[in-house]
Amino acid sequence: MNDIYDEALKLHKKYQGKIKIEPTTPLKNKHDLSLFYTPGVAQPSREIAKNKSLSYDLTWRDRTVAVISDGSAVLGLGNIGPEAAIPVMEGKSLLLKEFGGVDSVPIVMNTQDPAEIIKFVTYIAPSFAGINLEDISAPRCFQIEEALQNIGIPVFHDDQHGTAIVISAALRNATKVVNKPYDSLKVVVVGAGAAGLATTRMLLGLNCSADVCYRMPGHSAVGDVIVVDKNGALYSGREHQNIYKQAIAGVSNKNRKIGTLQYVVKGADVLIGLSGPNIITKDMVSSLAKDAIVFAMANPSPEIMPQDALDADAKVVASGRSDLPNQINNVLAFPGIFRAVIKGRLKVITQEMKIAAADALANMIKKPTATNIIPDVFTPNLAETISQAILKVK
Amino acid sequence: MNDIYDEALKLHKKYQGKIKIEPTTPLKNKHDLSLFYTPGVAQPSREIAKNKSLSYDLTWRDRTVAVISDGSAVLGLGNIGPEAAIPVMEGKSLLLKEFGGVDSVPIVMNTQDPAEIIKFVTYIAPSFAGINLEDISAPRCFQIEEALQNIGIPVFHDDQHGTAIVISAALRNATKVVNKPYDSLKVVVVGAGAAGLATTRMLLGLNCSADVCYRMPGHSAVGDVIVVDKNGALYSGREHQNIYKQAIAGVSNKNRKIGTLQYVVKGADVLIGLSGPNIITKDMVSSLAKDAIVFAMANPSPEIMPQDALDADAKVVASGRSDLPNQINNVLAFPGIFRAVIKGRLKVITQEMKIAAADALANMIKKPTATNIIPDVFTPNLAETISQAILKVK
Repeated sequence: MNDIYDEALKLHKKYQGKIKIEPTTPLKNKHDLSLFYTPGVAQPSREIAKNKSLSYDLTWRDRTVAVISDGSAVLGLGNIGPEAAIPVMEGKSLLLKEFGGVDSVPIVMNTQDPAEIIKFVTYIAPSFAGINLEDISAPRCFQIEEALQNIGIPVFHDDQHGTAIVISAALRNATKVVNKPYDSLKVVVVGAGAAGLATTRMLLGLNCSADVCYRMPGHSAVGDVIVVDKNGALYSGREHQNIYKQAIAGVSNKNRKIGTLQYVVKGADVLIGLSGPNIITKDMVSSLAKDAIVFAMANPSPEIMPQDALDADAKVVASGRSDLPNQINNVLAFPGIFRAVIKGRLKVITQEMKIAAADALANMIKKPTATNIIPDVFTPNLAETISQAILKVK
Repeated sequence: MNDIYDEALKLHKKYQGKIKIEPTTPLKNKHDLSLFYTPGVAQPSREIAKNKSLSYDLTWRDRTVAVISDGSAVLGLGNIGPEAAIPVMEGKSLLLKEFGGVDSVPIVMNTQDPAEIIKFVTYIAPSFAGINLEDISAPRCFQIEEALQNIGIPVFHDDQHGTAIVISAALRNATKVVNKPYDSLKVVVVGAGAAGLATTRMLLGLNCSADVCYRMPGHSAVGDVIVVDKNGALYSGREHQNIYKQAIAGVSNKNRKIGTLQYVVKGADVLIGLSGPNIITKDMVSSLAKDAIVFAMANPSPEIMPQDALDADAKVVASGRSDLPNQINNVLAFPGIFRAVIKGRLKVITQEMKIAAADALANMIKKPTATNIIPDVFTPNLAETISQAILKVK
């Protein structure tokens, strides 16, 4: 791992940024200048003044989104501030372009006040076709994203929904491998942050606002989920639960199991780690039901090393690591999602669209096996396939 | 002119944006992904968390600025809103890249409240190496820019300072043509907005904050300036003057001339239009002193057509038009200024630096004539010359 870090640092120094601005048109003489700057540029401005939606037809807004962070929860590194978040946001911009064909601009904010962040994103909205929120800590991320659902362009917090989509897709295929009915699955999710709660919502087929969740008719759901945070299992009425945890507690953990992770994992079919390094032990995996599924998603160090989970008799194991089979990574989803935003000029990304993205991703694996439950990141047309699936439910 | 507008609109439709995002590095396989995204990207983030200034060494911040507007005073089109400002901001981004080699991002804001704009720019500052404010109406632009002078990166309102720099340079050379002493010039400036007040400040060799102006020692100044707004000449104690006009009134119009533009232009050596179409008449130009200098800067329609000013006996005439000699345009200055910001990692752009830029621009014309007082926009190394001049006074 240190070799990767050394090489990464060297390359970041060399390139000074993974993206750059380029002209789409040459500027060779005064005539060009009079067309693309004064006086000619006045004309597209006049047209847009009459009809704001023409900003999509006459500027780069049509193909450009912003990747925005406050640096409060960067990767697994925590609250390291806006400047330190830039390399990650730039990385997303690189991936959006390379995989999704979407232009994007990394922007970090020097405030962590949710009310100010909401205003900031509202103010910047006319510049872009969509907003990818990134690495904003929970529970602030829920409040912020929710307040921004009706600003005229989609606002999508990838740590929540990107993660939920890829895990949901992978779990569908893993379930086929172990040959269990999806709607009977008992799932334990470790971690009640952005990814943990959003994943739980999707697995339970829920559409949630801050303190209300409802089952979406016509969508499948697992049998039950128990979410565990550092105080143990969430359950209805527990203390130390913010409103987002409380809302999930009300519709999950049907048997109101109370206790530690070690206690509640016993007999579960699926264990999903969305927390931090080494939280899951081999003993916990051994205590799962037969033909268990374990996803250890923490990056760069997973909750349990995949080989350890296999040694403890898990049947299907996945992680975020690129050097092992079954790499579950958000890059499988967000380029396709923002491709749909651009192609469809979406105003909002609905829960139905996220489910369609997860289904499309799962369906790309025709015959799932224990070491092949999710497509490779470099699969041709991956983003386009997801984009088309989303635009079908538009 | 309509031909230009039609062609410009057609091209803006065709290109859908004059700039685009491109990767600086290919992304071919999982190893590349592990270097530029997780896990490798964690390393530059960790380094920047320890030392924020490394955000310049390890990301595109080192070569990227933002071009920001609220759409309140777009070209001569007025308050047409943020969306309609995007084509102009994109145009600036195109010019910054083509002439200055500087990457930039056009950003428009959906608020025109100065306090909110100040916060917005403060919040976005860690993302960029500098901020070009653009097309923000006076007097809000003065308040906003002033409040942003100590946020760690330079904030430069081009409508003020870019204009002041290019006019100041052109006037120096025009004065040589008419062979008058610079410090004896009587100047009338028509327009007391962003450009009018900033130009007056520079011509008088002043450094100003909101309500205080002082003479900068060691810098030359014209003999006197009378600024005229729609209520006539500014003078100390006049009613209907905001604090910025009041500050200028206190140090200009030495003889306290009171009256209309038509009245105060009589006998002046220089008449500079920074207002709107057709404000200056041939009679006014005829009433100027012998060998008069007339700059009619309004875009796209000048205060007086250059040929009319020449017919009324002006000796040196300039405008913003690209189809006539002596085109005075901000694009002569801002690419070089932001090139200096990038190359010198400037934290602020001082008045001394602006004067150095004006001097460098003037000095590029070795032997000024009535039809050659300012370099052509496409002069090789123009931005680099200005950048070097600025970095000498750093």
